[in-house]
Amino acid sequence: MSNTKVLPLLESDAQGVAPCCPPLTERPFTAEEADTAARMFKALGDPVRLRLFSAVASHEGGEACVCDISDVGVSQPTVSHHLKKLKEAGLLTSERRGTWVYYRVEPSVLAAMGRLLTTASTAA
Amino acid sequence: MSNTKVLPLLESDAQGVAPCCPPLTERPFTAEEADTAARMFKALGDPVRLRLFSAVASHEGGEACVCDISDVGVSQPTVSHHLKKLKEAGLLTSERRGTWVYYRVEPSVLAAMGRLLTTASTAA
Repeated sequence: MSNTKVLPLLESDAQGVAPCCPPLTERPFTAEEADTAARMFKALGDPVRLRLFSAVASHEGGEACVCDISDVGVSQPTVSHHLKKLKEAGLLTSERRGTWVYYRVEPSVLAAMGRLLTTASTAA
Repeated sequence: MSNTKVLPLLESDAQGVAPCCPPLTERPFTAEEADTAARMFKALGDPVRLRLFSAVASHEGGEACVCDISDVGVSQPTVSHHLKKLKEAGLLTSERRGTWVYYRVEPSVLAAMGRLLTTASTAA
């Protein structure tokens, strides 16, 4: 179940997922929208987490095991700590297969965050 | 000069600005790229800052004075503190005109952050 849990920035709808929040340029965020979106921005607001997230996101097939992505100059427990934080923020999902845990970025999360940052004139 | 300083995520080029970093899905970030981008994500990783940023970004004409955007349930000094943080991260610029300081979002910053979050297949 760990790789199918609902992501904080997204809500299920007929297409699968919908973004929580309008583009930042469309109207002032409500407190609830700001809480949800800030959680994800905060998760990416650490250089080590951002490198790990980028390593997973850019890995072949869109997923990576810890063995693939620990080359960021910090200890293995620190890597695990940051991966856990990214999971808690809904940015990564994970699945254990045999010895290893595999991490994956949900593309719709990236799309939803990207949508927040579009300008009003170019937003759908 | 405060409204013309170089923004951390951007470097000047012939077109004006260029993003510091590739899309997160393109390849693992270097330490330097991660430092730069994490600073901006961190600045948006606070609900009050995100609401203030959204209030400025969505205000008529793309700029707002403190008098326009202090309706986020925190004290005026707290508003000023968060606006300062957003400026330090390069997300807002400011200009004093008469009594008021006006804040503005540089559209190219939003575009550069949005580009980080595009998927490799859709990135330019």
